[in-house]
Amino acid sequence: MKKNIRVGIVGYGNLGRGAERAIKQTNDMELVGVFTRREPTTISPVENDTKVYHFDEMNSFQDQIDVMVLCGGSANDLPKMSPEIVKQFNIVDSFDNHSKIPEHLEHVDFVAKQSGKVGVISVGWDPGLFSMNRLLGESILPQGETYTFWGEGLSQGHSEAVRRVEGVKNAVQYTVPIESELNKARTGLGANSNPANRHKRVCYVVADKQDEERIEKEIKTMPHYFEDYETEVYFISDDELAKNHSKMRHGGFVIHSGETSVDHNQALEFSVTLDSNPEFTASVLVAYARAAYKLNQTGDKGAKTAFDIPYTALTPKSREDIIRELL
Amino acid sequence: MKKNIRVGIVGYGNLGRGAERAIKQTNDMELVGVFTRREPTTISPVENDTKVYHFDEMNSFQDQIDVMVLCGGSANDLPKMSPEIVKQFNIVDSFDNHSKIPEHLEHVDFVAKQSGKVGVISVGWDPGLFSMNRLLGESILPQGETYTFWGEGLSQGHSEAVRRVEGVKNAVQYTVPIESELNKARTGLGANSNPANRHKRVCYVVADKQDEERIEKEIKTMPHYFEDYETEVYFISDDELAKNHSKMRHGGFVIHSGETSVDHNQALEFSVTLDSNPEFTASVLVAYARAAYKLNQTGDKGAKTAFDIPYTALTPKSREDIIRELL
Repeated sequence: MKKNIRVGIVGYGNLGRGAERAIKQTNDMELVGVFTRREPTTISPVENDTKVYHFDEMNSFQDQIDVMVLCGGSANDLPKMSPEIVKQFNIVDSFDNHSKIPEHLEHVDFVAKQSGKVGVISVGWDPGLFSMNRLLGESILPQGETYTFWGEGLSQGHSEAVRRVEGVKNAVQYTVPIESELNKARTGLGANSNPANRHKRVCYVVADKQDEERIEKEIKTMPHYFEDYETEVYFISDDELAKNHSKMRHGGFVIHSGETSVDHNQALEFSVTLDSNPEFTASVLVAYARAAYKLNQTGDKGAKTAFDIPYTALTPKSREDIIRELL
Repeated sequence: MKKNIRVGIVGYGNLGRGAERAIKQTNDMELVGVFTRREPTTISPVENDTKVYHFDEMNSFQDQIDVMVLCGGSANDLPKMSPEIVKQFNIVDSFDNHSKIPEHLEHVDFVAKQSGKVGVISVGWDPGLFSMNRLLGESILPQGETYTFWGEGLSQGHSEAVRRVEGVKNAVQYTVPIESELNKARTGLGANSNPANRHKRVCYVVADKQDEERIEKEIKTMPHYFEDYETEVYFISDDELAKNHSKMRHGGFVIHSGETSVDHNQALEFSVTLDSNPEFTASVLVAYARAAYKLNQTGDKGAKTAFDIPYTALTPKSREDIIRELL
C-alpha cells in the first residue's frame, strides 16, 4: 500500500514518542516530522530518520502534512493548541478534562468549520474507546447499569503523593479494581455507585526499615488520596522497584448489564490491559488521525468525537475488504 | 420523551419476541404491530396490547411505520425478505451467513437506493458488535493478532447431534472457550490459529445408566461435530436438565493484542455474557433500527453495516447530552 497520509506530531513527550512508533506500524501513513517548542537539535527521536522541527516552522508545512497528531497536555497545551492548529491542519487530540470537553469541542468546531478542516477531539481509551462502550451499553440495554473501572494501573498523581511522605525514597501507586465489585457489575447485581468503593490502592514503597510502620500509617490516612480507599502498602527494595515497576502499565473495564426479561441478565464488557499507557493512547490517536484525514477527504469539516465517527474511517482497508474479512 | 419512532416487527419467533420486549424498554420507540405469515389470531404476543397482522397487510402501513425489524432466519427468510421490504420501509436485519453477506448487502443496497430507504444488515453480536471490535483492534494495533472465541454457549446444532445418538433421551451441548487459549490471546503469546483447538465441547446428557459408557464414546468420536474437539460428557437427570439448562445462554470474546514496542504488549477485549441469546440479539437489532430511522431522517439511503454507522445514531439522546454525560 502506498503511504498516502502525511502526518505530523506536535509535542514530543511519552505520547509523542508513542505516536512516532504507532505511525511506523501502519502501512498507509508517513511521518513528515515532529514539531516541538524545545530546541530541535536537543531532541533524540525514537527513529534515526525522524525529522524534528521547531513549533514555529509549522506554517510552512501546510501543503506537506495532511493531519497533525497533537501530543500536548490537557491542562495547558491543548486548549490553545487545538483551535490554533486546526486553522491550517486536520488534527486529532486526546483532551481528557471531562468537564471542559463541551467548551473545547465548541472552540475547535468554530475554527475548523471556518478553515474547512476536521478536528477529532478527546480520543484515547478514556475518553474515547470507553466512552463509546458506555454509550453502546445503554443504547442496547436501556434498562441497565454501566460501571467504569480503572486499573490495574499506575497513577502518577498518587505515586507522587506517596513520594512526598517523609522517609519515602521512592514509590509507585497502582489503582486496582476490586474483584467482587467487578463481578457484581457483570452479573447485574449492581456494583457500588461510589468509585472509591470499587477500587483499592496498592503502594510499593522503598524506605528504611525503622520508618515503615509510620509511613504505612501516614499513607493510609492521607486525606483525599487514600483515606477513603482500601489501601495496601508493601515495602520493597530499590532494585525490585526498578525491575518490576518501571512500566507505565494501565487498563480498565467498562461493564454494562441489564435484564431483557425476568432473570435474563445480559452483560457487555470492554477492557484494555496496557503495558504502556502513553503508547496505547498514541495508537488510538493515530487511528483517529486517519479518520480525520478520511472524513476531510469526503468534504467533512468541524469538530468530531469518537461518537461521530464510523469504523470505516479508522481502517486503511476498503469498505469491501472489511465487510468480506471482518463482518 | 415522546415515543416518536414507529416500529414494526416482521416474524415472530424467539427473535421477534425479543424485539417486542426490547422496544418496550426504550423511551423513544412505539411498536405498531407484529407481522407474521401465520394466521394472526393464533399468535399470543408477550404484551397483551401488541397488535398482530398478517404479512400481506404490510403494504397498508407505509405511512404508519418508520422502520421494520426483520426477525426471520438467514437461510430462507432474509435473502428475499430484506430486499423486498426495503422497497417500502427502513429495515434492520441480523443476516449472519458470513460468506453471503456481500451479496446480501448488494441486493439490499440496490433496492434501498431506489426507494430512498436505509437497510441496516447483519447486526447482532456476531456479525455486528464482534465485527466492530475485530476492526477496532486491527485499526489501533495493526501489528497484532485478533482472536474470536464463542461461548460459553448453547449450540443448537450440536445439541441436536447428541440427541440423535441412540439411547439419548435428552441433551444440551455447550461450546466453551479453553481458558489457557484465552490467556494466550490476551497476553500476546498467540492462541491456536484453529478455532477447534481454542474451544471445548461440554455435553449434558439424559440416558439410562447402562448406556452411558457407549453413548459417551459415540459422542466423543462423532465426525465433524466432536472428534476434533476436546469433549466432556456429563450424565444428569431429566429434572436437572430442565432446571439448569433451559436458557439459551451464549456469549463470547473478541481479543486483540499487539506490541507497540519491545515488551510492551497491549490488549483490547470485548465480551458478552448472555442469559438469552435471542433477546440480546433483538436488543441490538432494535438499537440499529433507531439508527436506520435517524440516518434516513438526515437524507441517507442504501444498505449499511455496523461499520458504517456512528454511535450518535444508536442513542435516543442528543449529541450534546452524550458528549456531556458519557464522553
